[in-house]
Amino acid sequence: MKLFASFVFAAAAVTLVAPAQAQFAKPEDAIKYRQSAFTVMAAHFGRVAAMANGRAPFNAADAASNAAIAESMSKLPYVAFIDGSDKGGNTEARPEIWSNRAKFDAAAEKLQGEMTKLALVTKGGDFDAIKTQVGATAGACKACHDDFRKKK
Amino acid sequence: MKLFASFVFAAAAVTLVAPAQAQFAKPEDAIKYRQSAFTVMAAHFGRVAAMANGRAPFNAADAASNAAIAESMSKLPYVAFIDGSDKGGNTEARPEIWSNRAKFDAAAEKLQGEMTKLALVTKGGDFDAIKTQVGATAGACKACHDDFRKKK
Repeated sequence: MKLFASFVFAAAAVTLVAPAQAQFAKPEDAIKYRQSAFTVMAAHFGRVAAMANGRAPFNAADAASNAAIAESMSKLPYVAFIDGSDKGGNTEARPEIWSNRAKFDAAAEKLQGEMTKLALVTKGGDFDAIKTQVGATAGACKACHDDFRKKK
Repeated sequence: MKLFASFVFAAAAVTLVAPAQAQFAKPEDAIKYRQSAFTVMAAHFGRVAAMANGRAPFNAADAASNAAIAESMSKLPYVAFIDGSDKGGNTEARPEIWSNRAKFDAAAEKLQGEMTKLALVTKGGDFDAIKTQVGATAGACKACHDDFRKKK
């Protein structure tokens, strides 16, 4: 069975001004939320990476649509690293997120920036440029995992 | 500590043309993906609902930004109800999703339509209209859960 899904990511410039702490009733909710946002982001980034690495046929439109979703998703999880959510659920967050917040925030911004570049590059459809930017984006993922995610 | 997050949901009209089946390496991946997308959607819809129901102070900009994200998220999970993902992980999907697909698809489209209406209504900032549309959207959630999600 083939399924086809059409969808539009709504154009919306938004600013969340509510304190993040107030957005989650309990730490476990914040943990589940951020893990979920990362899961969706990784699924869509992974499809672009698979094309870039030759594990899936390259399709420029698919690369662009998946990169756009991954970029949008990259904006969501970081607000959920609220105080008190260093433990609970099945979090893999390391305490350094809270003890070295400036470095964590910089790593988050780095990832978001690379995702934005990826979304732009995929719109251009140049395979080699996409492959290069997939590498840069994956590097930003890994750098943050190395410093701030528990080793498995 | 107060955290503030600014983000822009990218304007991107996209069509996923790849077969859904090919987007997930195994059923468990599809299950985790769709559950994650629903979790993020529910978190943002829940913030609008909390305002509408008086459990949180009404802020028109917050309502609009959260509704826009919820609408975007509502486009994602349904493609992941692939063949073979009726079992596995901790899925609560009922077999009727696959045995009565037309009805399930209609329920999904209903929810997406109500989310789109909510995103539009929240832009208008009319509290009573938002409250009414929150009710309609929640009704679409519940109708699909009643028919297609296992009872807890």
